Amino acid sequence: MRRILVLHGPNLDALGTREPETYGRTTLEHIDRDLHTLAAELRCEVECRQSQHEGVLIESLYRARGAFDGVLLNPGGLTHTSVALRDAVLASGLPVVEVHVTNPHRRESFRHVSFVSGACLAVVQGFGAPGYGLALRGLVEKLDRGQD
Amino acid sequence: MRRILVLHGPNLDALGTREPETYGRTTLEHIDRDLHTLAAELRCEVECRQSQHEGVLIESLYRARGAFDGVLLNPGGLTHTSVALRDAVLASGLPVVEVHVTNPHRRESFRHVSFVSGACLAVVQGFGAPGYGLALRGLVEKLDRGQD
Amino acid sequence: MRRILVLHGPNLDALGTREPETYGRTTLEHIDRDLHTLAAELRCEVECRQSQHEGVLIESLYRARGAFDGVLLNPGGLTHTSVALRDAVLASGLPVVEVHVTNPHRRESFRHVSFVSGACLAVVQGFGAPGYGLALRGLVEKLDRGQD
Amino acid sequence: MRRILVLHGPNLDALGTREPETYGRTTLEHIDRDLHTLAAELRCEVECRQSQHEGVLIESLYRARGAFDGVLLNPGGLTHTSVALRDAVLASGLPVVEVHVTNPHRRESFRHVSFVSGACLAVVQGFGAPGYGLALRGLVEKLDRGQD
Amino acid sequence: MRRILVLHGPNLDALGTREPETYGRTTLEHIDRDLHTLAAELRCEVECRQSQHEGVLIESLYRARGAFDGVLLNPGGLTHTSVALRDAVLASGLPVVEVHVTNPHRRESFRHVSFVSGACLAVVQGFGAPGYGLALRGLVEKLDRGQD
Amino acid sequence: MRRILVLHGPNLDALGTREPETYGRTTLEHIDRDLHTLAAELRCEVECRQSQHEGVLIESLYRARGAFDGVLLNPGGLTHTSVALRDAVLASGLPVVEVHVTNPHRRESFRHVSFVSGACLAVVQGFGAPGYGLALRGLVEKLDRGQD
Amino acid sequence: MRRILVLHGPNLDALGTREPETYGRTTLEHIDRDLHTLAAELRCEVECRQSQHEGVLIESLYRARGAFDGVLLNPGGLTHTSVALRDAVLASGLPVVEVHVTNPHRRESFRHVSFVSGACLAVVQGFGAPGYGLALRGLVEKLDRGQD
Amino acid sequence: MRRILVLHGPNLDALGTREPETYGRTTLEHIDRDLHTLAAELRCEVECRQSQHEGVLIESLYRARGAFDGVLLNPGGLTHTSVALRDAVLASGLPVVEVHVTNPHRRESFRHVSFVSGACLAVVQGFGAPGYGLALRGLVEKLDRGQD
Amino acid sequence: MRRILVLHGPNLDALGTREPETYGRTTLEHIDRDLHTLAAELRCEVECRQSQHEGVLIESLYRARGAFDGVLLNPGGLTHTSVALRDAVLASGLPVVEVHVTNPHRRESFRHVSFVSGACLAVVQGFGAPGYGLALRGLVEKLDRGQD
Amino acid sequence: MRRILVLHGPNLDALGTREPETYGRTTLEHIDRDLHTLAAELRCEVECRQSQHEGVLIESLYRARGAFDGVLLNPGGLTHTSVALRDAVLASGLPVVEVHVTNPHRRESFRHVSFVSGACLAVVQGFGAPGYGLALRGLVEKLDRGQD
Amino acid sequence: MRRILVLHGPNLDALGTREPETYGRTTLEHIDRDLHTLAAELRCEVECRQSQHEGVLIESLYRARGAFDGVLLNPGGLTHTSVALRDAVLASGLPVVEVHVTNPHRRESFRHVSFVSGACLAVVQGFGAPGYGLALRGLVEKLDRGQD
Amino acid sequence: MRRILVLHGPNLDALGTREPETYGRTTLEHIDRDLHTLAAELRCEVECRQSQHEGVLIESLYRARGAFDGVLLNPGGLTHTSVALRDAVLASGLPVVEVHVTNPHRRESFRHVSFVSGACLAVVQGFGAPGYGLALRGLVEKLDRGQD
Repeated sequence: MRRILVLHGPNLDALGTREPETYGRTTLEHIDRDLHTLAAELRCEVECRQSQHEGVLIESLYRARGAFDGVLLNPGGLTHTSVALRDAVLASGLPVVEVHVTNPHRRESFRHVSFVSGACLAVVQGFGAPGYGLALRGLVEKLDRGQD
Repeated sequence: MRRILVLHGPNLDALGTREPETYGRTTLEHIDRDLHTLAAELRCEVECRQSQHEGVLIESLYRARGAFDGVLLNPGGLTHTSVALRDAVLASGLPVVEVHVTNPHRRESFRHVSFVSGACLAVVQGFGAPGYGLALRGLVEKLDRGQD
Repeated sequence: MRRILVLHGPNLDALGTREPETYGRTTLEHIDRDLHTLAAELRCEVECRQSQHEGVLIESLYRARGAFDGVLLNPGGLTHTSVALRDAVLASGLPVVEVHVTNPHRRESFRHVSFVSGACLAVVQGFGAPGYGLALRGLVEKLDRGQD
Repeated sequence: MRRILVLHGPNLDALGTREPETYGRTTLEHIDRDLHTLAAELRCEVECRQSQHEGVLIESLYRARGAFDGVLLNPGGLTHTSVALRDAVLASGLPVVEVHVTNPHRRESFRHVSFVSGACLAVVQGFGAPGYGLALRGLVEKLDRGQD
Repeated sequence: MRRILVLHGPNLDALGTREPETYGRTTLEHIDRDLHTLAAELRCEVECRQSQHEGVLIESLYRARGAFDGVLLNPGGLTHTSVALRDAVLASGLPVVEVHVTNPHRRESFRHVSFVSGACLAVVQGFGAPGYGLALRGLVEKLDRGQD
Repeated sequence: MRRILVLHGPNLDALGTREPETYGRTTLEHIDRDLHTLAAELRCEVECRQSQHEGVLIESLYRARGAFDGVLLNPGGLTHTSVALRDAVLASGLPVVEVHVTNPHRRESFRHVSFVSGACLAVVQGFGAPGYGLALRGLVEKLDRGQD
Repeated sequence: MRRILVLHGPNLDALGTREPETYGRTTLEHIDRDLHTLAAELRCEVECRQSQHEGVLIESLYRARGAFDGVLLNPGGLTHTSVALRDAVLASGLPVVEVHVTNPHRRESFRHVSFVSGACLAVVQGFGAPGYGLALRGLVEKLDRGQD
Repeated sequence: MRRILVLHGPNLDALGTREPETYGRTTLEHIDRDLHTLAAELRCEVECRQSQHEGVLIESLYRARGAFDGVLLNPGGLTHTSVALRDAVLASGLPVVEVHVTNPHRRESFRHVSFVSGACLAVVQGFGAPGYGLALRGLVEKLDRGQD
Repeated sequence: MRRILVLHGPNLDALGTREPETYGRTTLEHIDRDLHTLAAELRCEVECRQSQHEGVLIESLYRARGAFDGVLLNPGGLTHTSVALRDAVLASGLPVVEVHVTNPHRRESFRHVSFVSGACLAVVQGFGAPGYGLALRGLVEKLDRGQD
Repeated sequence: MRRILVLHGPNLDALGTREPETYGRTTLEHIDRDLHTLAAELRCEVECRQSQHEGVLIESLYRARGAFDGVLLNPGGLTHTSVALRDAVLASGLPVVEVHVTNPHRRESFRHVSFVSGACLAVVQGFGAPGYGLALRGLVEKLDRGQD
Repeated sequence: MRRILVLHGPNLDALGTREPETYGRTTLEHIDRDLHTLAAELRCEVECRQSQHEGVLIESLYRARGAFDGVLLNPGGLTHTSVALRDAVLASGLPVVEVHVTNPHRRESFRHVSFVSGACLAVVQGFGAPGYGLALRGLVEKLDRGQD
Repeated sequence: MRRILVLHGPNLDALGTREPETYGRTTLEHIDRDLHTLAAELRCEVECRQSQHEGVLIESLYRARGAFDGVLLNPGGLTHTSVALRDAVLASGLPVVEVHVTNPHRRESFRHVSFVSGACLAVVQGFGAPGYGLALRGLVEKLDRGQD
């Protein structure tokens, strides 16, 4: 059975209460619960973690090697500033799908550049909370299909 | 029953034969057929068009007003150069989801900028051909959910 | 009797319905009708065309040589991206006045640069639909005055 | 009866003698006289001032509040360098139309950027001296029409 | 009684000993003690924390919601590099005043840009250690005055 | 008894009426009166001047040498464009504190750069009208403390 | 017998009459006739097409696969703005030689950048009309030589 | 007898006392006196003016037409920021030599760009106060030689 | 006996397994063991720490004051993004030698810029794992030599 | 009989052995021999020189005045960095055709800019060794045709 | 008796014949002869050398230490590209005055930047051949005056 | 026995006397002598050359092929400006270690970019004269180890 790690970066534990007109009203707990439900349907297992710490996210990516088959990663604001996180995505050797609740291209120009995206397999942006589910589907499908 | 327009931009009719190590081996016909199948499952209808012409894509977006509930758009190389297409996305008044077969952030730096993304609801990049299906799911889910 | 070609670029057929808070509520038909009325008053003739296609606009500029005395051109989003249209303006050998319904300097920064303006005689921006009439007056006056 | 302030910025008192191949041979006195004539026709009143001083232009914009219904402003070289003038345009609370005798896009690249245009209602460039008359017509028409 | 959180970012525990010609000779303990004294005078309460960790600062901002009425934040070197901290400032929903001991505009050019300042209510720079007291006065005054 | 010169640059005489949602509703007279009151409390004397003219501000800075112990300077829009004002701040040989009513980092990007700040002792931004009082406190405290 | 497609982009049908001091006095018909003559000499066959439409040029490149052995392409103003054309060059899988009548490095700075050249085998610029013949020779020679 | 206008811009009246380690210890009175002496030797006449006001400098340049044969101009900090002054130099129709007491290339990078130099005949930088004398010699020599 | 702190930043614990074609096959344990051996030879003592956390690296640099004579620092991806780490290097008051296993100039362009290098004594890049030994030799030699 | 100078810049004597996958396997001797053969066919004479020295290339261009009718120049890496060579091309007063064995647009981005090309008549890039022959043909043809 | 070295860089031996509309008609021999005459008048001695070689200019600067009291340097096109020459100017330990026959600010934008000027004492630009004499006067005056 | 070429670029023969506070007091002769001593210890042979000429350095790199096993290169100021030297490093086919006496990141910003480093195996910066010895150790170690 496939195992998928879901990593939420800085500020994402505030989903639902933080600037809801931008980020929507769904909480992180809700997102994680929905992912578990979908995972069961897709016959895989998800484990969800959130951290405000770049270092913890990096460690989680390392520990995922061997323990997980792929990763969903929402790097939050680190997307635009962290080369270390990019390096960790590459070093994990796992397929990583980047998820953003909002569409960064509709926001400040400094959110239009990304250090992390170029190290990821794929990117899903702007669907709100349901974007995680799409990313999970896409990742599992990719793992089923293998390298094409 | 919801109606979704699927617009493929320049060079996408060559999918499957064009640089397959970059774009994969799935043809556009195959993608469109899979979208029809998924649409049936999601209880909506899709109509698929491809054009090499910026002008035809713009016209299609205009004509979609009233006739469709949403759009999947892969603008191909126009993503990075067309303000007119961006204007048409906005002018259509429809929710538009941008799809890319590849992950542009893994390619030349001129593909890291986009005129179109900022006018779209959401973006799906890098899943290969299956990305269209994810985008369709996400768009339908968004239409079902309404404005949040 | 002077003959003036009026060329409307991509998305301008949607005037009046497209984002009316930005572009106003006057339709393209209305603008063209007003231009015919003003042309009669100024003792000239106008012919109006709209196209979503860069190529059609270029062809129209070429065909205008010999057939028209000047051009009003609203290049829409192509203003900011088309060197080919700039070249066609120069190649037409005609005095061309660029018209914009909105004032691009109040909008996104990518609308602050223009490839076309440097090839035009003059520019009128931000008056809404009545800007076309001002541009026509200015162009006819210029033709009457000759080279100064 | 509407009252319009016409503000000419630095170097514009030299019109007619200064680099006539660039700026034409019409003097500022001539332009102002023509504006008075046109104003009578349009049933409004104009008052014309020229200053080499950014500060005087700013003061004039302030004093225009309450005393005038709109402003024609040719900021000359300050267009490209003065945030203070931009602020004064906004602070005046009046509709301001920017006029340039030449088309700045045909000149040095530092004339392609503008601090003032984004604070103005509209811009008229490149018609030579007659551009003032077009700007006056456009402004009066806009005032007649009200907010659309 | 108002409660204000004082957050000192990376390297600030070294104040007094670190490059004293740049940062002065006042220690962080001294600054915090002075803030408590001033707080008593202003009839509010302050709580002071220092961390080298971006993540801890983000967590502190989150926990401040509900528990504090405002924040004094010296982000240190993170000012110029952290979008995640900017997001946390916004997400906290609290008025945040940014304080710098030095005036960054007198230092290296990479200190002239800031990701955090645009999310803050106000900024105080260059007064040395006493800048914290000014910021506290300003913040309390603002809270007393309410939204103007 | 210390003497402090307060210099208000272009557009600041319009405080209270100019775009009040941005600049607040306090008038410049009110600000100056409050500064006199605070000065009495801090046992110093203030003299306040406003000018729309860069040249007058420069002259005032020169004349302040010998006559004043320090300066509060709000350069308005000149902040972002005037090297001459920067030179005058340095040439005055006095400690100068820059004050802005708004926080420029929350506004247009051309307000994020400053020629003047690097020549000033300190900067206070975003507190609205009360920012002047904070700046005065900070400057007097600095003068009392001497060079540290 | 080798078959070579010659594609002329926007504005090139005006060669000979358009700005002759820049582009020379040779017409496109003349160029095409000379290419046929040279082709006979080089024992190959050429087919020449001109279009103002980016989309038509893209389609022609696609249809060239299988039908032609190589392409001469003068993209005109699209050189500097079209990623879609670059993609089509790559997608054609054919060796493409880019030809320019003028030397773009002697013209406006926006003509110094190219999206298309990096996808082409080789580039010939600045020889005027005879540059096509050189490009044809170079392409045929390359085809004869094979991959080196 | 030739007449030369000497224009000193903002902050130059402070020469001798302002940052003497940068600008030297010679006062402006001293410079002007030396210029009169040298003028007598070179059989010409000089008139010297200083102003902190961009507008006054512009007016002086205009009035110099007809009244003077050439100009020495030290624009001070306006060098790097004033297009209006550049325009006035060109509009004066006189040969203008730019003088700087310091060598701007040894100072802050914003002093490495100049709007004024491109409109001047020649530039003398970095000789301290004696640079004015060199510039006067060069200008008179140029006037004697005429156009070469 | 000299004491040297060796600090390895984010992702460096993965050396030997992470992208070995880029980073080589030597593990961090191996590097640390070799450093201890070399230290004995050079009659100094090394202590080695690795952390994924910017904050932990900063703390380690602070604690090194008094306890160590110098530092070898491989900041990993933080090299290119952390002003806080740069500040900590300076604040430590110790000679710090930066080490990189790879040569960043042969990699992505964002690795060509560094915030940390300008605060370090020296830099060793591209020798693979043996670069640490060279850096240790260089640092010890520098300490022996003293300030020259 | 026409005389053409062929100038090969730095590193070109290594053709054939230097990075053959980039530069091909043809040696410089071979290229020069082929050029002599072609010259005979075109009824002109070529003289070939190679130098690693910018200064020698400049001298050769000067000495070519009067002695040669035109120049083929491959400036190698100096293309992207030498203003002095550009000046020498202009100063020679001869028509110069720039040749590159590779297509610089397919290589590092610093090879996409050129100081030399804007001073040359024409450019031939990417044909490998045979590009020299094409350039010779083009140059002779141009000389035969004269100025058009 | 003071000894001054005069160094002319690449392309300057062509003065008088090279693009005379830009560089004038005075030859280098003439300039050098005039400098000897002026030197006699100023009671110093000059030695003049020209080289196309950056390396020879660097060597000449080195050898000038001890042998000369100052240098006049016209670096030609190396001005804009040579850090090595800048280093040699600094390493010579001599006062160096940079001379340009033309005013680089009136020419291509790449001539507006300089690596050499920031290492020189002073700069004289745009006086044509007589600029050398002014530079010599300025340098000798500076040497007479000593450090001020 | 391994043979290593040591190449010192422009200005390096002045080490020890040139700006000793920046470059230290060790002469080039001393450095070369130390390298011979170390080479004996490492059982290899070094040959040392210095040149002010880019062209001589390029020739030396070429001649090193076959004659040497590796190169130590200090390109001096050419580091930041020479593409030709970069090309020669690559063309030599030898492992090249770049050495700088100073740490360029602590100096002017134009020294933070490098054309040469990306072509080298490794870089050693900032250790002063002893950096050569470290580079030699590192190069020999690398040669012993072979490709890893």
